[in-house]
Amino acid sequence: MHNNFPINTAVSLVVDPLISRFLDSRRLSTNLLHGLSAEDCQSQSMDDTSPTKWHLAHVTWFYEVMVLQQFESNFQFWCPPYAVLFNSYYNIVGDKHPRPKRGLLTRPTLDEVLAWRENIDDRIVELLKVSPSQPLRWMIELGINHEQQHQELIKTDLQHLFFNNALYPAYLSTPMERPLTKPLVQWIECPTGIQIIGYQGPDFYFDNEGPVHDELIQPCWIRNSLVTNAEWKVFVNDGAYLDSKWWLDEGWAWVQREKVQAPLYWLISDDKAQYHQFSLRGVVQLEDDEAVRNISYFEAEAFARWASVSMPGHENVRLPTEFEWETIASTQSQCVQDLFGEVWQWTNSAYTAYPGYRPWSGLAGEYNGKFMVNQYVLRGSSALTTPGHTRKSYRNFFPTHSRWQMTGLRLAKDIG
Amino acid sequence: MHNNFPINTAVSLVVDPLISRFLDSRRLSTNLLHGLSAEDCQSQSMDDTSPTKWHLAHVTWFYEVMVLQQFESNFQFWCPPYAVLFNSYYNIVGDKHPRPKRGLLTRPTLDEVLAWRENIDDRIVELLKVSPSQPLRWMIELGINHEQQHQELIKTDLQHLFFNNALYPAYLSTPMERPLTKPLVQWIECPTGIQIIGYQGPDFYFDNEGPVHDELIQPCWIRNSLVTNAEWKVFVNDGAYLDSKWWLDEGWAWVQREKVQAPLYWLISDDKAQYHQFSLRGVVQLEDDEAVRNISYFEAEAFARWASVSMPGHENVRLPTEFEWETIASTQSQCVQDLFGEVWQWTNSAYTAYPGYRPWSGLAGEYNGKFMVNQYVLRGSSALTTPGHTRKSYRNFFPTHSRWQMTGLRLAKDIG
Amino acid sequence: MHNNFPINTAVSLVVDPLISRFLDSRRLSTNLLHGLSAEDCQSQSMDDTSPTKWHLAHVTWFYEVMVLQQFESNFQFWCPPYAVLFNSYYNIVGDKHPRPKRGLLTRPTLDEVLAWRENIDDRIVELLKVSPSQPLRWMIELGINHEQQHQELIKTDLQHLFFNNALYPAYLSTPMERPLTKPLVQWIECPTGIQIIGYQGPDFYFDNEGPVHDELIQPCWIRNSLVTNAEWKVFVNDGAYLDSKWWLDEGWAWVQREKVQAPLYWLISDDKAQYHQFSLRGVVQLEDDEAVRNISYFEAEAFARWASVSMPGHENVRLPTEFEWETIASTQSQCVQDLFGEVWQWTNSAYTAYPGYRPWSGLAGEYNGKFMVNQYVLRGSSALTTPGHTRKSYRNFFPTHSRWQMTGLRLAKDIG
Amino acid sequence: MHNNFPINTAVSLVVDPLISRFLDSRRLSTNLLHGLSAEDCQSQSMDDTSPTKWHLAHVTWFYEVMVLQQFESNFQFWCPPYAVLFNSYYNIVGDKHPRPKRGLLTRPTLDEVLAWRENIDDRIVELLKVSPSQPLRWMIELGINHEQQHQELIKTDLQHLFFNNALYPAYLSTPMERPLTKPLVQWIECPTGIQIIGYQGPDFYFDNEGPVHDELIQPCWIRNSLVTNAEWKVFVNDGAYLDSKWWLDEGWAWVQREKVQAPLYWLISDDKAQYHQFSLRGVVQLEDDEAVRNISYFEAEAFARWASVSMPGHENVRLPTEFEWETIASTQSQCVQDLFGEVWQWTNSAYTAYPGYRPWSGLAGEYNGKFMVNQYVLRGSSALTTPGHTRKSYRNFFPTHSRWQMTGLRLAKDIG
Repeated sequence: MHNNFPINTAVSLVVDPLISRFLDSRRLSTNLLHGLSAEDCQSQSMDDTSPTKWHLAHVTWFYEVMVLQQFESNFQFWCPPYAVLFNSYYNIVGDKHPRPKRGLLTRPTLDEVLAWRENIDDRIVELLKVSPSQPLRWMIELGINHEQQHQELIKTDLQHLFFNNALYPAYLSTPMERPLTKPLVQWIECPTGIQIIGYQGPDFYFDNEGPVHDELIQPCWIRNSLVTNAEWKVFVNDGAYLDSKWWLDEGWAWVQREKVQAPLYWLISDDKAQYHQFSLRGVVQLEDDEAVRNISYFEAEAFARWASVSMPGHENVRLPTEFEWETIASTQSQCVQDLFGEVWQWTNSAYTAYPGYRPWSGLAGEYNGKFMVNQYVLRGSSALTTPGHTRKSYRNFFPTHSRWQMTGLRLAKDIG
Repeated sequence: MHNNFPINTAVSLVVDPLISRFLDSRRLSTNLLHGLSAEDCQSQSMDDTSPTKWHLAHVTWFYEVMVLQQFESNFQFWCPPYAVLFNSYYNIVGDKHPRPKRGLLTRPTLDEVLAWRENIDDRIVELLKVSPSQPLRWMIELGINHEQQHQELIKTDLQHLFFNNALYPAYLSTPMERPLTKPLVQWIECPTGIQIIGYQGPDFYFDNEGPVHDELIQPCWIRNSLVTNAEWKVFVNDGAYLDSKWWLDEGWAWVQREKVQAPLYWLISDDKAQYHQFSLRGVVQLEDDEAVRNISYFEAEAFARWASVSMPGHENVRLPTEFEWETIASTQSQCVQDLFGEVWQWTNSAYTAYPGYRPWSGLAGEYNGKFMVNQYVLRGSSALTTPGHTRKSYRNFFPTHSRWQMTGLRLAKDIG
Repeated sequence: MHNNFPINTAVSLVVDPLISRFLDSRRLSTNLLHGLSAEDCQSQSMDDTSPTKWHLAHVTWFYEVMVLQQFESNFQFWCPPYAVLFNSYYNIVGDKHPRPKRGLLTRPTLDEVLAWRENIDDRIVELLKVSPSQPLRWMIELGINHEQQHQELIKTDLQHLFFNNALYPAYLSTPMERPLTKPLVQWIECPTGIQIIGYQGPDFYFDNEGPVHDELIQPCWIRNSLVTNAEWKVFVNDGAYLDSKWWLDEGWAWVQREKVQAPLYWLISDDKAQYHQFSLRGVVQLEDDEAVRNISYFEAEAFARWASVSMPGHENVRLPTEFEWETIASTQSQCVQDLFGEVWQWTNSAYTAYPGYRPWSGLAGEYNGKFMVNQYVLRGSSALTTPGHTRKSYRNFFPTHSRWQMTGLRLAKDIG
Repeated sequence: MHNNFPINTAVSLVVDPLISRFLDSRRLSTNLLHGLSAEDCQSQSMDDTSPTKWHLAHVTWFYEVMVLQQFESNFQFWCPPYAVLFNSYYNIVGDKHPRPKRGLLTRPTLDEVLAWRENIDDRIVELLKVSPSQPLRWMIELGINHEQQHQELIKTDLQHLFFNNALYPAYLSTPMERPLTKPLVQWIECPTGIQIIGYQGPDFYFDNEGPVHDELIQPCWIRNSLVTNAEWKVFVNDGAYLDSKWWLDEGWAWVQREKVQAPLYWLISDDKAQYHQFSLRGVVQLEDDEAVRNISYFEAEAFARWASVSMPGHENVRLPTEFEWETIASTQSQCVQDLFGEVWQWTNSAYTAYPGYRPWSGLAGEYNGKFMVNQYVLRGSSALTTPGHTRKSYRNFFPTHSRWQMTGLRLAKDIG
């Protein structure tokens, strides 16, 4: 296993903080079950999503197959068929249950999955107590980060599932409390010239965030604030979804084929007087000052083209590159709002390898590298991202038509 | 509402037998939940099947929308959106939830559906006590028959769902106890000339079983016994699934497109030494003397063509017409085995209207008539059919590629 | 080869009439090229259609592979790959070029196909002169009938091809001259009871027209005249294409999926004031008194249901069975108009085997039998049918959604 | 119209060289008809390709709609419907004939298209003589370059069409004469640091080649020679098409779905002893020392990953970026073989806008920009590229699965 950061393996007499973090992370997942029935955890609403139960099982599968199987002496499977049922995409470790049929796995039941989780948790803790080798600790870190990614997916996938039910169920009962203030739009100048890109710290990071390397930044401004619902309403009401001139050719084909008329969860009354939005809190008023969310790359890119001729002060705007985003986040983060915790922000950077990139060796080698084609990078993090799972160098990525994630956009524009 | 049979509406002091039959029928459905988790009742394995929970809700929807809404004063919906969520295909009563997305209805939960069922049951019983009009009684009869059809579907749909899980779960725990005896193949002569076809009794029947009319029967023999697994093994091992000459053109395209190699639930070991079958009891030995099941019309028809040149004593065999089947069942039923209770038997009769057929008037008008195209008639009943839901005149029907139902075949051959 | 009719094999000193008929039939095909460019003969507009050049080659293939290869000594292929390129669906004689890719065969050129035709013609004539055995003569009869079928397809396929070109080219330059008279609608009583069905004469017929057998005819009337464009306009303007209640379930799905709004070639102006029709003569005025054409079974069936409640004097109308059609054509043909030569007439009979049916033995065995599923029978013949290719017992057949053939309908209604 | 290079508009007494170049370019297209029948020019083998006749008409449409309509006084369409039939993808100028149905346009005939071409040519020459304004001259330059692109497409599309015919026709009759010499593999060091990218000369270039800007080049080597058939054979015979570990996730799905086993036109005998290749010269021996061609981005990328562990001296190879390619071509072109004229070379650069990119204003605005998503850049040119249509800054682009173009690869590897 490739060691890409030093971890202190000295075992203190007090509880190993990694054990606490591991258990916290595990608990966070099961806490997400609050308010859900076993049925809610069972269904899969489309090929791209997975059932909650499947997520809970898959992150456990990761610990069993990728960790215990390598590090535990006398390893035995809890239930051997689970190794196939809950493999997501790792060809190296064997067969997989077909992705579009994850919602058909009514067995094991949710209770059985939870029992399996407890067993695996106990064994991981025991292993960390008994033989906390550095390679093991690194894999646990990866496991925690992996589970954090699935925690966000559990929420986005549930929202998509509930959107398919005319009852529009609410997952969260509490109203959102964030005070909304309409920001003044400002353009922040991005440092130019050669900038250092990639994760440089001592902690865990994904292989696709490295190696650290130089990138050349062209002169540009970055907008301090995210694009809002109010701004997007103007885009909608200007007929932008009906006019090919704002769209990439493939995006226009997508708009017509899928009959796209607004962001995924917008609910517009027939007389266009009422705007609502389906959310994890059920159907709520569409707030003008919130960041627009659940838009595809195609929509983000079309909005920028439209804004460059339609929005005062937005001449020649475009999406930022992922390197501009990382540079501004590294150097001007106090001038720029909502870099993290609101919406993932589409960049116009195709998801590709950094110079000198090598996938992790071993079982984790399929984690990121094999998806580096026909996807675009999103930066930042969203309101659904697990706290702590945030880095300036973090690279999220999705295909250009995907919009069931909490995705929005921030604009950039060229200088000169 | 069209009254197609007389029902005595005199209310006795003792309990109305219709109330008992209604409640028995309702209880039979919920009894099917034994051994199932809420998750098992949630999932939909393909467009043609439905979740158990959906079936339980839909038959309740039938009583609420098709009965209570018409006959109950002060009618109010238990929950108005259910009228849309659980409508199967009745355009006349309004919108429908999309058929392929029934598995996404995690709300209402199973418990909520069961609570709804109880409420509806109480109101139906009350209505039958207070104002047991003849039109109401006829609709209750229809409701009972409708629910009986869905009881069989619950079982076939569960089997299909469980077949998609590599754990191959068993729904029923008890072994099958029926003694198997290898019957001697005999050919029973069918009465010839003009025969009376269609339901003639005083009880409930579906509109498609009438009107009573004459059909002309050509001289033919009907085989006393169903085609068995042992016979079908010879068909498989003779390479019949690989040779276009046995197949209808459209059937051959289906075999190649779907890579069909055996009946749906057969599990053949790689060395072809072991034959098992997935069943509601899990994976079991394939019994030679049992009737073959879970075959499509295409397979049944191909088998007949193959058998006519490959099986001694089977020269010129074919599938019987539905009228030959009904005639032999009406006149020679003591000579013919397993007419009912084993497998539905494909006939070579396209599903069409009898002379003078009129669909029921009113809300039930879409029950049968609108499906009379590109489907074939099956006669008899299966081991999964609810007891009592059996008539010599009964016409089941499915498209030519369907085989998740408990479908088999009986052969006929021409005389002269 | 099965001999299903006696042919006098005595060779007279004068020219064998079969040779004349053969050559006439061959010439009729090439005469269809008048007014067409090589490009017109090249393209295939959908999977169901074929290019004119392919038709001309395929009927020649038939004579080379099915006749010369069997009967000619020292047989040699003109060009061996043609045996694959121009096989339509005969598995028994080997591989086939993929059906949807017939339009890609730019080689051989049209000129090369015509040269091949001449060579084959010469060899067939020589063979008929030298050894006019009865089996050979029967195969030539089949070849002539086969080519006649393709002559109609050449025309219907060209019309469909030209309809895909906004230039709307005309194939025929002469206007249609048939005087149109609005017939008085009359209902002709059909002979009832047992009637003899199937071809009984001494000449050639297709295997699916036999064996001769009895059918039981229920009391009914048959309309003397075909359904007209004027009548169909009322159907359209009554919103029938927008109302599920007139349609079979599968038909309604087809209407919505394909956005069907009128017969295939109707061109209705946006203000609905102008009705035109694309024809082999280009775009022409839609004539009220002409028979409606280019409708699917679904449309014909829906029209009958609509007419039964919407057209005065048409209570309870339906499509006739193929046996009612044949009976009225055999017994009352003087009372009934346009049995032949206008449009093929949909019946409500699924295409299936007659009692005792056996496909031809030998190479022609795949001609008809393997298509006997999920298609419906049409009777009569159309204005595009080759003269002479007409019999009261003739059974044409197409799937329920097909409508690029010249298909119309005649109504029946039950007595009592 | 955007003027991106200065053109001398002084009209000399001698013939305007632009007129000569225009006429030469037009003649080059019609010269491609040599050896083709009208039918060969009619068919479309898949959605991505177009018929030869359509190409010839479309480049003429360009001159009529994009040039004459803007610049000619008293402009009249030769045939108004052609403006729709032969529009490729310019939404701004109106409707289009559906792309997958270009092969159905049997009218106008090839002769009619050629007559139209002559008329347009005469009018363009007249216009250039009478009023050779700079904007007009720029549009003519664009028209010439546009037609050059279609000249290459005519050849690649013909090859694909002929590959669908079991006769495997040859388009070119002369054998290829290029002497093949096996190059010694050498690795050429690429200049590093900030390099200038983009077209800098005085002549015509496409908008996507600019603006000129800086790019940062990381240290790397570029292989002097293209990957050869001999090398690819090792890849094939090592089972690389059967092993997911070499492939991007989306590439592996493509390989399995399309059953890809070798480059598009390779013909491998069943015993794997004989390797042939379908070419415009028909089926020819696969030459070991020729550059591999007709591979997708997925295949090129997988080959690099495989080579990095399987080919001696190729540790850590990858595809070059488009900027590395342009830099080496600008600075070390004498050390590097076959930059141009053999095969287009896949880079690992997603096709995107250069910093500060603006599409051309006016009618040509849809030429390049709207395709900048989910495609990859190819550099160089191929043996099928029209002479003169070659620049170091030229950016060709295709989706990652496309391989009917003459596409190959050149490898790079990181230093240090």
